[in-house]
Amino acid sequence: MRTADLDTPAVLVDLDRVERNLRRAQDYADRHGIRLRPHIKTHKLVRFARRQLRLGAVGITCQKLGEAECMAGGGIDDILVTYDLVGPIKLRRLAALHERVRIAVVADGEAVVEGYATTFRDPGRPLEVLVECDTGAGRCGVQTPAEAVALARRIAAAPGLRFGGLMTFQPRARRRETDAWLAEARERLEAAGLPPATVSAGGTPDLLRAAEITTATEYRPGTYIYSDRMQVAWGHGSLEDCALTVLATVVSRPTATRAVLDAGSKVLAADTAPVPGHGHVLEYPEAVITALSEEHAVVDLAACERRPAVGDRVRVIPNHVCVVVNLADRVHLLRGDRVEETVPVDARGRVT
Amino acid sequence: MRTADLDTPAVLVDLDRVERNLRRAQDYADRHGIRLRPHIKTHKLVRFARRQLRLGAVGITCQKLGEAECMAGGGIDDILVTYDLVGPIKLRRLAALHERVRIAVVADGEAVVEGYATTFRDPGRPLEVLVECDTGAGRCGVQTPAEAVALARRIAAAPGLRFGGLMTFQPRARRRETDAWLAEARERLEAAGLPPATVSAGGTPDLLRAAEITTATEYRPGTYIYSDRMQVAWGHGSLEDCALTVLATVVSRPTATRAVLDAGSKVLAADTAPVPGHGHVLEYPEAVITALSEEHAVVDLAACERRPAVGDRVRVIPNHVCVVVNLADRVHLLRGDRVEETVPVDARGRVT
Repeated sequence: MRTADLDTPAVLVDLDRVERNLRRAQDYADRHGIRLRPHIKTHKLVRFARRQLRLGAVGITCQKLGEAECMAGGGIDDILVTYDLVGPIKLRRLAALHERVRIAVVADGEAVVEGYATTFRDPGRPLEVLVECDTGAGRCGVQTPAEAVALARRIAAAPGLRFGGLMTFQPRARRRETDAWLAEARERLEAAGLPPATVSAGGTPDLLRAAEITTATEYRPGTYIYSDRMQVAWGHGSLEDCALTVLATVVSRPTATRAVLDAGSKVLAADTAPVPGHGHVLEYPEAVITALSEEHAVVDLAACERRPAVGDRVRVIPNHVCVVVNLADRVHLLRGDRVEETVPVDARGRVT
Repeated sequence: MRTADLDTPAVLVDLDRVERNLRRAQDYADRHGIRLRPHIKTHKLVRFARRQLRLGAVGITCQKLGEAECMAGGGIDDILVTYDLVGPIKLRRLAALHERVRIAVVADGEAVVEGYATTFRDPGRPLEVLVECDTGAGRCGVQTPAEAVALARRIAAAPGLRFGGLMTFQPRARRRETDAWLAEARERLEAAGLPPATVSAGGTPDLLRAAEITTATEYRPGTYIYSDRMQVAWGHGSLEDCALTVLATVVSRPTATRAVLDAGSKVLAADTAPVPGHGHVLEYPEAVITALSEEHAVVDLAACERRPAVGDRVRVIPNHVCVVVNLADRVHLLRGDRVEETVPVDARGRVT
């Protein structure tokens, strides 16, 4: 089967680019002595998690427990869930997963640790907990190195928990500041007799400069497997590295300069990028996707010399690939133009 | 089961509000002699399509053929697909569906009509085709009433097609201009001996003023069943009409003014509204959801007197409910706080 045989819209994954992207990252990590723990939120496929492990990753990262359950079901047995797991339902599920695989989690406050501590009480099989640090991204995380130490003490004092180290999702392109934050936290932890076994940073934009965060022992890139317009705009690689595209059909040419595609925000998602438009049209690089409605993309062709006709097909590099994957029931895996296999997105919609 | 027993994030649908929203629209349509043809893209549930029909709708509207196939599978037998269906795969699927149910489609150009005309050749069972008109929204559609007439002639001349009338998704709050456009097109069609049996307009923002588009015989509202922040900002009803909310847990309180919820853009979607923030937090109306990442919502509590703790649950009215539904594998149907039933979203992801 060729892509021409596929109905549209369809999500295409170029296997050669995937392999190249995975290898580039693993090579970098190996060269710099960084353990790679890829985040599977981008691809949500057991097969690619396995490939990442075979290439040398030490384990995987999941954002939601549901993703971890899915990956564990696929035989992945070393998982870090970089999420505060809160409430009795989540803790029961975590306990069940902890029986099956090596799982570590994070906490950024007393209440979260309290939940873990009351659920896990067996010193013979402790739950590993890392302290999440807000090194400037302004999302979750303890706010200061001193708070990190206080929370590490709380974890270490719980019989069924083990303090695993520090975890941050650092702000983009702030490697030096991140490193200073983490170095201070490590020093204070060492002084407190709680040296962090792992210091984990993440994010694709800084992946190929991760070694500049000298304190980090582990790195968690996610988007790098497919890359997207946002990553390229932020300086990670080029459009030639983008392994995922959306195949779409031109369904309307209402005016000389307007085309409409059959992929809208229910396929491409409404996420914006630091460049204009809602995606990059490979065949018409001067075209601008000016608007998405749910099932249509409106394309401005004013800058294009050649222009497509109704029925023509184009491929679009999305702004943010992680959310595109999470909208797709299945992806088509390609070698060149040949569809090798069409596979369901294993962990699609696993948001709990 | 109560909502307190649900894991989060979870999509909740208030059945009483749904019923009220459906009745209000049907009552309005009945009062003004407008045929209602609800768009199912919002709820994507066979059961609600059936309810809309029982209340008096003349049929349903789908945006994608996949939605129509799903609804036909659920026994719905009068469907308008307001989409240019292009290419051999789509046309084969359309032909199969046309064998099973009463289906009408739209076209806005020669190439689209050509596809229909070569696929459907039986004068005994013609395919009904409406001409899509761009009355100012700038998406699909013929650009002038004269073009509408030319395309109607082309449809009427094809033995296996039947010209069904005009269809527009008009620009919001431009009822008078829309009406002028459609009235001119109708006059010209009548002069050409092709009076339009149906003139179909749509969109929830203008639903309760649809009668001002005097030329329209049919109206296709979608979002009105659940409503959302965007509709309320545009003047359709109030937040009390919003029937769909996302139940989320506070998983982090990193600072005095920041809370983080376990629902991000993979649940709430990144669509923006004409009001600040990524959703309305029912329990903390002064709170602002300042940022979404894939699995987190960052909430600014600065304006809140009371503030939630880790583990507390809140309900969020999303900015754009249609895309939230399309992200959810299932929705929980509520009477008050009781979960009556949890159902899969029948047509979720049916984007082809």
